[in-house]
Amino acid sequence: MSLHPGFVVWFTGFSGAGKTTLAKLVESDLRGRGMRVERLDGDTVRQSLTRDLGFSKEDRDKNIERVTFVAKLLSRNQVAVLAAFIAPYREARAMIRQETTNFIEVFVDAPLEVCIARDIKGMYAKAMAGEIPNFTGIDDPYEAPEAPDLHIRTDHETPEQSAARVLDLLAARGFLLPT
Amino acid sequence: MSLHPGFVVWFTGFSGAGKTTLAKLVESDLRGRGMRVERLDGDTVRQSLTRDLGFSKEDRDKNIERVTFVAKLLSRNQVAVLAAFIAPYREARAMIRQETTNFIEVFVDAPLEVCIARDIKGMYAKAMAGEIPNFTGIDDPYEAPEAPDLHIRTDHETPEQSAARVLDLLAARGFLLPT
Repeated sequence: MSLHPGFVVWFTGFSGAGKTTLAKLVESDLRGRGMRVERLDGDTVRQSLTRDLGFSKEDRDKNIERVTFVAKLLSRNQVAVLAAFIAPYREARAMIRQETTNFIEVFVDAPLEVCIARDIKGMYAKAMAGEIPNFTGIDDPYEAPEAPDLHIRTDHETPEQSAARVLDLLAARGFLLPT
Repeated sequence: MSLHPGFVVWFTGFSGAGKTTLAKLVESDLRGRGMRVERLDGDTVRQSLTRDLGFSKEDRDKNIERVTFVAKLLSRNQVAVLAAFIAPYREARAMIRQETTNFIEVFVDAPLEVCIARDIKGMYAKAMAGEIPNFTGIDDPYEAPEAPDLHIRTDHETPEQSAARVLDLLAARGFLLPT
């Protein structure tokens, strides 16, 4: 494996906006280049890092805090980190930018009604039935990025098109190894 | 920076046995070689990763679980990890060996009475006064490694001698970059 800078691409947006789908496509491309990559999302961290946490603001903050610590250590050691978490609060995202190396904020955006219609994991149904309190978009706010490094509308383009835009940005910043 | 394999040196032993002192000496040598290094110990992880945890068996297990997750991601991405945690249970250490890349168990050993006499952080005094329940060596067991990769008696040699032995082992395994 060759050397490349460490960085953190943080995919932020509503549940169901397409964060993990996009992160997986980018991951696959980076692995094809022989880059060191870790994808972090709810599924990859829940078992070992955050399984004690729920949906309250305090627990969400702790969740982001722990993931940020991991992203910090990886990114400063030349690992490419792809993090897919809602991270609904602006202040928390500003903290992540400060803590990590080469932070890139990608706003994975789709209208809430589109995400609710998709409801891939059945989470919105539960949230609207009152079974999951403090659910982002339902009874907890999502503070949209004001100046993301990249703004993607997943209801206007395919995941492949979105992934190509992320890769173009990484190339422009000099973070990619050649294929 | 050049490439080197990832690995995890886990310094296990009583509080006060000299784990962090030894880890810091090894860290300094590895940094001098331009290696990618992360030292993990109570002080470096408490703020972001484990500040909700106490001394119960359940909390100790969670502590080790989270640190292991971090060590796993770092070591499989060619980072040298130096972890200094009591990790008193054999089963937990076996789990760490399984989860991480190139795990090396270093038993940092000093008789309990020596550690109590040192009591650098005043923890033994508190534990013996009943202020910290489930403290290893006082009212919670330490399951000594049966076949550690390296057994160091910190009451018989200087920290510099111990560090040299750790570095010799790393060299023998082919994990060191030349100075």
